[in-house]
Amino acid sequence: MHSLMTCLDLIGTFVFALSGATLAVRHRLDLFGVLVLAFATASAGGIARDVLIGAVPPAALSSWHYPAIWIGAGLAGFFWSQAIERAQQPVRVLDAMGLAVFAVAGTAKALEAGISPLMAPLLGVLTGVGGGIVRDVLLAQVPLVLRAELYAVAAFAGGGVVALGAALGLPPALTTIVGAVIAFTLRIAALRFGWNLPVALQAKNDDD
Amino acid sequence: MHSLMTCLDLIGTFVFALSGATLAVRHRLDLFGVLVLAFATASAGGIARDVLIGAVPPAALSSWHYPAIWIGAGLAGFFWSQAIERAQQPVRVLDAMGLAVFAVAGTAKALEAGISPLMAPLLGVLTGVGGGIVRDVLLAQVPLVLRAELYAVAAFAGGGVVALGAALGLPPALTTIVGAVIAFTLRIAALRFGWNLPVALQAKNDDD
Amino acid sequence: MHSLMTCLDLIGTFVFALSGATLAVRHRLDLFGVLVLAFATASAGGIARDVLIGAVPPAALSSWHYPAIWIGAGLAGFFWSQAIERAQQPVRVLDAMGLAVFAVAGTAKALEAGISPLMAPLLGVLTGVGGGIVRDVLLAQVPLVLRAELYAVAAFAGGGVVALGAALGLPPALTTIVGAVIAFTLRIAALRFGWNLPVALQAKNDDD
Repeated sequence: MHSLMTCLDLIGTFVFALSGATLAVRHRLDLFGVLVLAFATASAGGIARDVLIGAVPPAALSSWHYPAIWIGAGLAGFFWSQAIERAQQPVRVLDAMGLAVFAVAGTAKALEAGISPLMAPLLGVLTGVGGGIVRDVLLAQVPLVLRAELYAVAAFAGGGVVALGAALGLPPALTTIVGAVIAFTLRIAALRFGWNLPVALQAKNDDD
Repeated sequence: MHSLMTCLDLIGTFVFALSGATLAVRHRLDLFGVLVLAFATASAGGIARDVLIGAVPPAALSSWHYPAIWIGAGLAGFFWSQAIERAQQPVRVLDAMGLAVFAVAGTAKALEAGISPLMAPLLGVLTGVGGGIVRDVLLAQVPLVLRAELYAVAAFAGGGVVALGAALGLPPALTTIVGAVIAFTLRIAALRFGWNLPVALQAKNDDD
Repeated sequence: MHSLMTCLDLIGTFVFALSGATLAVRHRLDLFGVLVLAFATASAGGIARDVLIGAVPPAALSSWHYPAIWIGAGLAGFFWSQAIERAQQPVRVLDAMGLAVFAVAGTAKALEAGISPLMAPLLGVLTGVGGGIVRDVLLAQVPLVLRAELYAVAAFAGGGVVALGAALGLPPALTTIVGAVIAFTLRIAALRFGWNLPVALQAKNDDD
């Protein structure tokens, strides 16, 4: 169970780092910029969670596995950006997998740190979407996740299953897997069918 | 005293969340984006303060009162944005109230955590203006508070009264109320009379 | 040794604060905005490092030396911005000095806090470049350091010398000075000779 989680966590780190690196290349950042965006996208959510629950130094900084992975993904994104751009479909599937894993892992870690089951899924969402938000802020853009198809909702659903399971005393291995599958499925379905959250009605739009 | 503070703190949370939600609707974010901006505007300042003084997990994440309030305010902002836009005047008064409350509460909490009276008002200012800064950064804009009418100065004045009172051994209940009233009055007066901080003289302006 | 470090740290704080204030004036922020940018540029990197290694409250908030310095630098930047703009060359040299000092000091502090020698230089880089990143994000721009000439690489080289020295058991005073000199020299040489990191090749550029 624990090693499955670690394995999925490392996959999520790789995929998110690749997405950050690809976007950085598209914005013509230099090699260091590409590495920073790989790092931020992969680690910012988990670091924010660890700081908020008092788990410092964060795992992303105290183990060498994480830097090895995001540096590798950053270099891959730098040198093979054109191939990665052509592989949009697989990248999206991997990204949905990363989101699902980070959401359930973040929720589980928050529960272990004594956060209440009502709050823990919010930290799961933060773990899942924090990296993408920092990535977009560094590129001076409104974060995509604030506008995209059921991205955070999928993370929240996955985290909610884990938290609910903990409150009911169900075995964590079961709820973690169910939660991750639900988050992944929701996200893929939202992409496939174009599901979006509603935008509020507005009379006019004269002062952006 | 303590329950008065908590009550004001919850009012501040509601008002700031409403302001974040209203701005998010204006930028056409979806429902999740509206909730994130409600959360960030209401909680980012207090969370930053709690992280800096080592009070983790932050109050905004460990009690269910805060999410209940910003979720409620976010939904209200989403569904009734037009009515809220028409009520600019009351919203500004409530916003000034939130600023005053957060500034004195943030300063008091920093003093309790052992921060020196010279530094504590800076954490009060951070508590009061941090949320608005994060809100504007998420919308890819230069934070309004860096340009607006005596916003932070009002917060600093209120926090300063609390810190000075603590240094002189005056009763906290008194200095808290006086500090909040001063911050509120300064902010409202600045809005009413268009008081602004000076902008530096410049020869030319050719490289923004 | 320790007092040399503190002295260099205060110089770095002053120089970075001045750079933030100058940029804020150029973007026509008011006096408070200028002070916030002076503070953020000078302190954000060190504060982020302290939060990540659990050293709260951060030095930048618990000692009055730092605010005295960045407030002084902010006021100087506000009132004498034209003179400072004309002195680009000296400012750049001072900025390179600040970067070098922050990088080695940040690495040393991370090592003291028990971060491994493999990771500590990353925290040195964060200390050196974090302030500039926050400054640019607050101005709604893509951080310059993500695109500029060997800025972070110089910081990483300096921090790497300190970490390597610690791993080999060399005297810290020696490695700190050598590391700072290397970081400074690299940065100045990069400016002088226009050394840049490579940007990835791209087929087209149609979706920024």
